[in-house]
Amino acid sequence: MTVLTSTDPRTGESRDTGIAATDDAAVAEIVRAAASAFPALAAEDRAWRAGLLDALADALEAQRDALVAIADRETGLGVPRLTGEVGRSAFQLRLFAEAVREGGYLEAAIDHAGETPIGPGPDIRRMLVPIGPVGVFGSSNFPFAFSVAGGDVASALAAGNPVVVKAHGSHPETSAATFAALAGAARQHGAPDGTLGIVYGTGAGRALVAAPELRAVGFTGSLGGGRALLRIIEERDEPIPFYGELSSLNPLVVTPAAAAARGDAIAEGLFGSFTLGSGQFCTKPGFAFVPVGEAGDALVAGLVGRAEAAPAGVLLNERIADSFGEILARLVQEGRARIAGGGTDAASPGFRASPTVLELDAADVTADVTEEAFGPLIVVARYRDTADVVHALAAVPDSLTATIHSEPAEESLTRELTREVLPRVGRVVYNGYPTGVRVAWAQHHGGPWPATNTLHTSVGVTAIRRFLRPVAFQDAPEHVLPEELRDAYRGIPRRIDGILALAGS
Amino acid sequence: MTVLTSTDPRTGESRDTGIAATDDAAVAEIVRAAASAFPALAAEDRAWRAGLLDALADALEAQRDALVAIADRETGLGVPRLTGEVGRSAFQLRLFAEAVREGGYLEAAIDHAGETPIGPGPDIRRMLVPIGPVGVFGSSNFPFAFSVAGGDVASALAAGNPVVVKAHGSHPETSAATFAALAGAARQHGAPDGTLGIVYGTGAGRALVAAPELRAVGFTGSLGGGRALLRIIEERDEPIPFYGELSSLNPLVVTPAAAAARGDAIAEGLFGSFTLGSGQFCTKPGFAFVPVGEAGDALVAGLVGRAEAAPAGVLLNERIADSFGEILARLVQEGRARIAGGGTDAASPGFRASPTVLELDAADVTADVTEEAFGPLIVVARYRDTADVVHALAAVPDSLTATIHSEPAEESLTRELTREVLPRVGRVVYNGYPTGVRVAWAQHHGGPWPATNTLHTSVGVTAIRRFLRPVAFQDAPEHVLPEELRDAYRGIPRRIDGILALAGS
Repeated sequence: MTVLTSTDPRTGESRDTGIAATDDAAVAEIVRAAASAFPALAAEDRAWRAGLLDALADALEAQRDALVAIADRETGLGVPRLTGEVGRSAFQLRLFAEAVREGGYLEAAIDHAGETPIGPGPDIRRMLVPIGPVGVFGSSNFPFAFSVAGGDVASALAAGNPVVVKAHGSHPETSAATFAALAGAARQHGAPDGTLGIVYGTGAGRALVAAPELRAVGFTGSLGGGRALLRIIEERDEPIPFYGELSSLNPLVVTPAAAAARGDAIAEGLFGSFTLGSGQFCTKPGFAFVPVGEAGDALVAGLVGRAEAAPAGVLLNERIADSFGEILARLVQEGRARIAGGGTDAASPGFRASPTVLELDAADVTADVTEEAFGPLIVVARYRDTADVVHALAAVPDSLTATIHSEPAEESLTRELTREVLPRVGRVVYNGYPTGVRVAWAQHHGGPWPATNTLHTSVGVTAIRRFLRPVAFQDAPEHVLPEELRDAYRGIPRRIDGILALAGS
Repeated sequence: MTVLTSTDPRTGESRDTGIAATDDAAVAEIVRAAASAFPALAAEDRAWRAGLLDALADALEAQRDALVAIADRETGLGVPRLTGEVGRSAFQLRLFAEAVREGGYLEAAIDHAGETPIGPGPDIRRMLVPIGPVGVFGSSNFPFAFSVAGGDVASALAAGNPVVVKAHGSHPETSAATFAALAGAARQHGAPDGTLGIVYGTGAGRALVAAPELRAVGFTGSLGGGRALLRIIEERDEPIPFYGELSSLNPLVVTPAAAAARGDAIAEGLFGSFTLGSGQFCTKPGFAFVPVGEAGDALVAGLVGRAEAAPAGVLLNERIADSFGEILARLVQEGRARIAGGGTDAASPGFRASPTVLELDAADVTADVTEEAFGPLIVVARYRDTADVVHALAAVPDSLTATIHSEPAEESLTRELTREVLPRVGRVVYNGYPTGVRVAWAQHHGGPWPATNTLHTSVGVTAIRRFLRPVAFQDAPEHVLPEELRDAYRGIPRRIDGILALAGS
């Protein structure tokens, strides 16, 4: 039996957790329990399920301080950030509860029987239903909001599915404590056994993805990790959707007028954004275009000065620290990038990296200098004109976000830059920073490959669509229909004979 | 240069079409043209695009008789059916035009900046946008409605994407003539060159799926063909969604009371359904549960009598005819199935099969007797009680549809059967037949693997979602926003600060 260790990234010291890696037989058992729970769980009504999500949110907040203390020891992310993250996770669960009550996500539609231009049509009624057990891989960098209590779990449960989480190896004790809180609340709410499960260890993750009863996988992690799981899915007898949020460089463009008007404010904001959580955000701006010339020079100097003055930040684990050092070395070895401020920090204990700014000419931007470095590093490309930016963007992998800093007078330039970045990303941010993803109805956290491999979001209410499938009933007697598809029901928005009708109407 | 042949399935005679198989270089060129067309196409507004779809529908109808004549020679499906299919395809294009004008499919949402329970949130606006060039594989069995003028093409175009069709080898001349009609209408409407493309030949299909610029694939065909294309996708540098509609047995259950009350009507309807289009429908009821006893015997006798009296039907091509014979032989060799009526027809010219009924005990239902036979064949399983049906259903692969024939007094049985079949299918039909898929807002044509590999439909308005991706704008100046996301716009339904608002409100 392999017992997992928990490492304090501030000291590098490990200790045994007493948590055993889940063996394949146990994974199979846990997934079977999820499959067994599914019919009963799916049969509960939306009010019950919204109540479950609210109960999970309450349990999370009730245990907040204890959970934050464990997570701080395992991640080094600090109490304020982690406290906020628990709050964000609870808010997320409650937002899904609200969406479940509202019911629009069911996409309910009724086409009554009748004549059509091509003959008589039967009565057809459609809505979305849950798909079955969902596997969710916790991430290293969000021990709450993208882990056991995170958005994938919340959206899969909101849809009506049992969930089996694969705990991230970087914070096993946080995962176990969070799971205990959520599973206890679920039990108290009357959720069937098997509604929530958890497995530990890399091998368990592989076994989870391969489990025949699994119906979808949510994953937030590295491109390499995602590709490895995709290969397991390709070998399954039945393919299942894999929703991977994988890799993102998040280019940011500062126009000449923006650099001139508020270069120092941008330096301040950009520094804060690329070093937030020691730069360990999938939305970290990892690549910035700054104009040549005095204003751009001042902006870069502002970044470099802040980087030089800042202490090293704690990285989540040894693998991330090693990888950060390797990628930094590759970027510098490329020879075209000038290192300015920061660099790795081998002298301190634990896993640390100093804020690092690399600078190069936009003309030298190739795939070699657009490798994502998970950590407090930004590459600044200096450009002469918009054509430089457009040309260099071709070497930037598609991303979750792009950011444009421009001035109100630059309408045509802002539109041109928007046209250039929009096909490459899932979200465009104006005069702000991509870190900090609002959990909301209109959010989209996704983007073209390699940012993700899906046409769906993993943050915001519409993330629920990933874990639902449509069913249609043809000429069904009313008593077999879900309540939401009966004629007299008015509780949710529905599309009736092609016309959208609000709830109550 | 390989020139494609066109074969008349009524005679088996082939002739050169003069249409060359598209070589890899030409496929690459056609996909590049589609990619080049994409920005201009995506920039057109919804009114323009709805007009394009209407223009395509008009062109199709204007050429109807000529197209039907070609298709009848290549498919043997008959003039009435093919005339109906052109009408259905035109209706489908117009329904998507209506959906594009209505705009609900954009899923537009606005969350204004403001305080939230976890702090201030930025302004976020989300909607769906087209993804880029889509490859569509025409099917053998619907030369119009699931081919060049079919639902995948209509929904991909409606979403705003260029489309490259891979013509089915069974009807190259129909494909070429349909393409000429549609491409001419698109040109006249002002669509950019490259909006519509077509390629011919199996190798061209492979090259299409591998083309780096392609963004999604729509496929209606065999499980084997779908799996082969999935393997090509797995080898791409960038994975893309593959929407495959693959295989379906479409189980149908007749309850004891239904058999007693209207056994002969069911025999009539079921016979019509499993022999429609010579049984070459993905929604053909291929497996029926009929109770033991007198009423069930009479129902089966009604099926067998009709099968014996009916002439052989024409099959679409030699491959389907060969496969039908092989599968029939396997099913009969299984030894547990009694053949009753019909069988293959080797004596007539061309490719033909007679309506065929196989009968066995529900207790003998295994995976060996639930192989889909594309053609006029149905397996009837005789059951003693509902437990027999439930047990046997485990051996029936998940399907596009399931059908329940029951009487009004059997409410609890009907609910039980619904509970059993719903997790296994995409559509449940009551007291009707699964062939004939209404093209409508509420339709769902999909189902769990191996019926499809997707959580989306390929028929009905919501099929458009497959070819769209979300984007979000954060704190965007109004002038960069799509019209549909501006505050003053009222032309479509939108979700504003979580509240759904109808157009005009």
